[in-house]
Amino acid sequence: MVDFTRSPRELELEERTQRFIREVVIPYESDPRLAHGISDEIVREMRAKARAAGLLALQAPREWGGAGLDHRETATLLRAAGYSLLGPLAMNCAAPDEGNIHLLDRVASPAQKERFLRPLAAGEIRSSFFMTEPDGGAGSDPDMMRTTAERDGDHWVINGRKWFITGVDGAGFGIIMARTGEHATLFLTPLPAPGITIERVMHTADEMTPGGHGVVRIENLRLHESSILGAVHEGFRYAQVRLAPARLTHCMRWWGAAKRAHDIATAYAVSRQAFGKALIDHEGVGFMLARNEVDLRQTQLMIDYVAWTLDQGSKASTDSSMAKYSVSETLFQIVDRCVQVLGGRGIVDETQVSRIWREIRAFRVYDGPSEVHLYSLARRLKRNAARS
Amino acid sequence: MVDFTRSPRELELEERTQRFIREVVIPYESDPRLAHGISDEIVREMRAKARAAGLLALQAPREWGGAGLDHRETATLLRAAGYSLLGPLAMNCAAPDEGNIHLLDRVASPAQKERFLRPLAAGEIRSSFFMTEPDGGAGSDPDMMRTTAERDGDHWVINGRKWFITGVDGAGFGIIMARTGEHATLFLTPLPAPGITIERVMHTADEMTPGGHGVVRIENLRLHESSILGAVHEGFRYAQVRLAPARLTHCMRWWGAAKRAHDIATAYAVSRQAFGKALIDHEGVGFMLARNEVDLRQTQLMIDYVAWTLDQGSKASTDSSMAKYSVSETLFQIVDRCVQVLGGRGIVDETQVSRIWREIRAFRVYDGPSEVHLYSLARRLKRNAARS
Amino acid sequence: MVDFTRSPRELELEERTQRFIREVVIPYESDPRLAHGISDEIVREMRAKARAAGLLALQAPREWGGAGLDHRETATLLRAAGYSLLGPLAMNCAAPDEGNIHLLDRVASPAQKERFLRPLAAGEIRSSFFMTEPDGGAGSDPDMMRTTAERDGDHWVINGRKWFITGVDGAGFGIIMARTGEHATLFLTPLPAPGITIERVMHTADEMTPGGHGVVRIENLRLHESSILGAVHEGFRYAQVRLAPARLTHCMRWWGAAKRAHDIATAYAVSRQAFGKALIDHEGVGFMLARNEVDLRQTQLMIDYVAWTLDQGSKASTDSSMAKYSVSETLFQIVDRCVQVLGGRGIVDETQVSRIWREIRAFRVYDGPSEVHLYSLARRLKRNAARS
Amino acid sequence: MVDFTRSPRELELEERTQRFIREVVIPYESDPRLAHGISDEIVREMRAKARAAGLLALQAPREWGGAGLDHRETATLLRAAGYSLLGPLAMNCAAPDEGNIHLLDRVASPAQKERFLRPLAAGEIRSSFFMTEPDGGAGSDPDMMRTTAERDGDHWVINGRKWFITGVDGAGFGIIMARTGEHATLFLTPLPAPGITIERVMHTADEMTPGGHGVVRIENLRLHESSILGAVHEGFRYAQVRLAPARLTHCMRWWGAAKRAHDIATAYAVSRQAFGKALIDHEGVGFMLARNEVDLRQTQLMIDYVAWTLDQGSKASTDSSMAKYSVSETLFQIVDRCVQVLGGRGIVDETQVSRIWREIRAFRVYDGPSEVHLYSLARRLKRNAARS
Repeated sequence: MVDFTRSPRELELEERTQRFIREVVIPYESDPRLAHGISDEIVREMRAKARAAGLLALQAPREWGGAGLDHRETATLLRAAGYSLLGPLAMNCAAPDEGNIHLLDRVASPAQKERFLRPLAAGEIRSSFFMTEPDGGAGSDPDMMRTTAERDGDHWVINGRKWFITGVDGAGFGIIMARTGEHATLFLTPLPAPGITIERVMHTADEMTPGGHGVVRIENLRLHESSILGAVHEGFRYAQVRLAPARLTHCMRWWGAAKRAHDIATAYAVSRQAFGKALIDHEGVGFMLARNEVDLRQTQLMIDYVAWTLDQGSKASTDSSMAKYSVSETLFQIVDRCVQVLGGRGIVDETQVSRIWREIRAFRVYDGPSEVHLYSLARRLKRNAARS
Repeated sequence: MVDFTRSPRELELEERTQRFIREVVIPYESDPRLAHGISDEIVREMRAKARAAGLLALQAPREWGGAGLDHRETATLLRAAGYSLLGPLAMNCAAPDEGNIHLLDRVASPAQKERFLRPLAAGEIRSSFFMTEPDGGAGSDPDMMRTTAERDGDHWVINGRKWFITGVDGAGFGIIMARTGEHATLFLTPLPAPGITIERVMHTADEMTPGGHGVVRIENLRLHESSILGAVHEGFRYAQVRLAPARLTHCMRWWGAAKRAHDIATAYAVSRQAFGKALIDHEGVGFMLARNEVDLRQTQLMIDYVAWTLDQGSKASTDSSMAKYSVSETLFQIVDRCVQVLGGRGIVDETQVSRIWREIRAFRVYDGPSEVHLYSLARRLKRNAARS
Repeated sequence: MVDFTRSPRELELEERTQRFIREVVIPYESDPRLAHGISDEIVREMRAKARAAGLLALQAPREWGGAGLDHRETATLLRAAGYSLLGPLAMNCAAPDEGNIHLLDRVASPAQKERFLRPLAAGEIRSSFFMTEPDGGAGSDPDMMRTTAERDGDHWVINGRKWFITGVDGAGFGIIMARTGEHATLFLTPLPAPGITIERVMHTADEMTPGGHGVVRIENLRLHESSILGAVHEGFRYAQVRLAPARLTHCMRWWGAAKRAHDIATAYAVSRQAFGKALIDHEGVGFMLARNEVDLRQTQLMIDYVAWTLDQGSKASTDSSMAKYSVSETLFQIVDRCVQVLGGRGIVDETQVSRIWREIRAFRVYDGPSEVHLYSLARRLKRNAARS
Repeated sequence: MVDFTRSPRELELEERTQRFIREVVIPYESDPRLAHGISDEIVREMRAKARAAGLLALQAPREWGGAGLDHRETATLLRAAGYSLLGPLAMNCAAPDEGNIHLLDRVASPAQKERFLRPLAAGEIRSSFFMTEPDGGAGSDPDMMRTTAERDGDHWVINGRKWFITGVDGAGFGIIMARTGEHATLFLTPLPAPGITIERVMHTADEMTPGGHGVVRIENLRLHESSILGAVHEGFRYAQVRLAPARLTHCMRWWGAAKRAHDIATAYAVSRQAFGKALIDHEGVGFMLARNEVDLRQTQLMIDYVAWTLDQGSKASTDSSMAKYSVSETLFQIVDRCVQVLGGRGIVDETQVSRIWREIRAFRVYDGPSEVHLYSLARRLKRNAARS
């Protein structure tokens, strides 16, 4: 029977996370050290406090220090964590590390887990996922991958260029996707590594990602075959293993950020006067906030539904496509309305809203732009229609 | 724990209803007798078959022949019934009877139940709800009600005008809302009745409602005080008792109709060629259908959520406002896209889509236009913000 | 220099048309004979009055009784005429006759003009254009045409099926498009004709078109080669000659209808009270009407611009695509908002708004659905980008 | 007669500006000195080149070195200048100086013009307009102004706080709006001035404004009565004199920026492959670009129309409201689509699109957020409806 009751454990987790965000993380938002973007120093400080509060990487399996949450509980956790843009970093449930933890847990060898997963889940190091390529290489269409790995005895030699490599500067290791003939294979490499050069860090509106987004040149990177993550030639499949839940955790975190923007806009609309009454009493404003309420509910329901699907053991590739598309588009509209409600205040960094607005835009693009998800939804619809 | 599993009973009910709609009801859609709109004769025929199939008024309490469904099970039932515009009529779960059954079950006296509710639930008679008024009277704002009831000994005398009175022509009884001083009171009257004149039936795109939508004059209608439904002066409150679930059952039925339109449009897009390939392979078409898939999921989740809220005993007035607003706007967009996919075929009655499109428009207006729901959502948001 | 000044002649024409519509045509809207749709009898009556007022087919060339207007003056005339759905019929500037007058004037032989064009422009007969086909034939993609014309001595024999043939029942002649090998050719035929059978008139929401929209079977229709309109094999090109201006005259007429809906909604919003003030003082309503004002201005500018382009001698195929797409989508939104402002009144035929709403929907579909125009705009953009 | 022909002078001006932007200004966009935002040094360099090219402040009256353009010619000039975010700065037609030039030309005394307007129009100094206030003061509703000016003999003493004061840091003078009893008055002050403190420069996504957006404290600023701009108590009226054309010049400049984004996105969509064909051949992408084409045309028409209205001597307060609302909302959508077409590339500063996207957001907020314009459009509609 359809049921929306939350367990006491989930409610307790939510309440504790909300308090931690409010009391510990939000004060960091006005830390003057953030003027030039987030640094590993601040991340370390916040993580120490999260660890003390028992809130570090709870989404990870118990074996790696987590709480053994299912996807629905993870949704509750990450929505609460996302209420501050710093929250997921503080609690070690931010991208790309959170997705990499999930992937390593699923496919890494015991030795790889000890070496890479353990310190990653413990929040001691950061990681990177090398997939997207410049110069007409792999983007939304992975078949266009140009980076290659060639076997040389019991080693592999990798060459290529990657970009949008989130967090690469300062990362402790990376997962590299490279073409191996018709297929693709994932490789683990410690970082920094000879053969891997960060050409530059891309300039972006997103200043809340330690290590930024790098452009990387890989020249004759030589890795032993024990560096292969999972099986050879299974790279595209593993990318899917990582992708479906990763799409959903993005939805969860950004939901929290949109809720934050909405709360700020609502508080402003209640207190600010114009043309003889409170802003919120102007329907032009009140209706925008009412739409936000509806949209926050809708997106929460969609997230919970797909999380449940994953918990049933489904790969949920269609459902997570649907969620990624609709949640990203809808949350963006919520935050955009908040900017509008705040007026001038919404476009300057007097509140978190302008920052959330700038950063959430990327969510409609990464892990497949909305159009790619609509494309695959339409193709699946055609297949199903043909079958029926 | 959030759970979307459906019970075997629910799945069986859904499957049985779908089969009944497909095999029994849909063939009626091309009955030539429908050329001039639906008649009570056709309704009677279909109901006999629904009764035989054990599918009549299942949403009603067991006492009145129903299956004792909760709101979530009702959602499953009504979505399946709505797949044909004739389905809810056939299965006696259409407006306004379905809402009147619910209301009478909650507040009528035992004698009133025997007299009015029993034959109504059995599908033997139809009913009407007299609320909306012309000439600047009660519409979205019930405070503007002009119809009055004045006490005269142990009787009441009612005067006023009402319009948009769905199903009034041919109804067996009516529920009249009238002002009693500062308050309002509901009265039950058999129909036809001396003092109640149907001035005319309004011309509308909706031809699937037996009895149409009437303009009614009430002149010195004299009713014994035993005709009061529930307690005197409680009319506004009872209207809410009826309204929140009624809004949601509208959402359920129209969801089914939108799904029907989507299935028709999808089948067409898969088979029809243009510019060298199937329509659905044109992203301009495929994306519209993909958006429909997303929107059908979203609206289903919203309906289930609010149904669950009602099942928890909540009055759900805010939640049902939210559902009414978002579901009606979204379903309309779905059907509008279906028209567009069908092109010329979408604007003529070659399929059910043109009819669904014309009729579903009203859904964004009745039981409170979208703007009234946004208005009350914004006011509630303000109250909550003030409290926090 | 860009200039929006209107000439005195244009202003006089507009004022005179507006008065005619207001005083003569609008009263016909409540003629009880319209209950079953428009008849040729009513059209004849109205046309007699238009003729007397010097307002019949003014958009036609002087030679055929018109005023020799250019496209910009025609825009002014047709916007004013469209203010009533009956206006273009009364003034003989409705589809499909208006487009057929234009086409015949451009490509017919002197004898054809005398026989067909003269009585058509004089408002004595009606005409039809046979292009669209059922069963997977020609629709948005004319290459799929299945109706064929085969030469037989100095005659041609035509076979095929057509549908959506507007006005065919009762028309005095038809223009038939048929495949002639790789090409297409246009033929003129008097109606009724042996070999042409109206299988049925399609059921549609549009009741303001005399003759309705027919499904037609053409069996061994035998026409002398003098029946060819213009040159053989030039049918696709002539269809374009007809299409670009015809798309624009649709925009003009529907602009008038949308303006009417807006005026009705505005008058209601000013006078109707709800929740303590006039509807228009609720921003939720006032903003919808304000958006209408903006959209009416935008669409008027687009129409005038493309009319000017045509007046410069351009074929304006891209510009008229752009106008058809944007004007039809925008006008629909205007009328949809009017329905919403009127609430219950907007969905019943108490005003003209519900009727305009139902009928204007087709405008987004005929003469190329919006998606076909976007498709050709994108292709042209690509060609231009490749050139630059 | 409506006419869209452009004069040879206008076409020459457009062509010359386009070449200047392309050859001189666009190369500056990759000047490494821009890493920390625009500086007066770069502005000076670019202006020297604009002066040499005869393209400095051409929108100004001839007396001040301009070309005596009317509003329609100015539209052509500013659209071309806006093609680079640096263009209006280079050509001295950027906000707020361009609006201040216009205002001073209209209402300043001869002495004030010599002292302030001459060097401003010559591009030698910058200026500021002090209107918006923090702490619940004047924003969209000017009646809430808190800054006061009190007469003291032949001097006035001003106190208050202002924010969002564009360009204040480094400006040569400022125009201060202050309350004088029931009214408001404008004052001219050289900058820096004792009594005026820049508390801080606000942090914003807009890095292309020399001097940024300041928060300013005014304490006992003492100005001689000859500092009054125009007449005492006429401040609100003068603000309107400045506002209507200033709203429109914003539209013009941002139109150019949106066109730039569209050209970049189109070039990318033509050259980039995905899923087996060029991006633009995917309708999902091609339709977005086609919509851009339509929207660029629509906004250009609206700008030209309102410019013509101003040229007729109208104050155009309603028309400029309409233009500000619709053009800002539409251009934002254009640029947002460009980001989406570019995918990952659209959210990093690899092209100008991400920057244009961030900066154009403010346009929907300043000079009255969209909602304020809808509000005043609705009120005017009500007044007009009442009159008719």
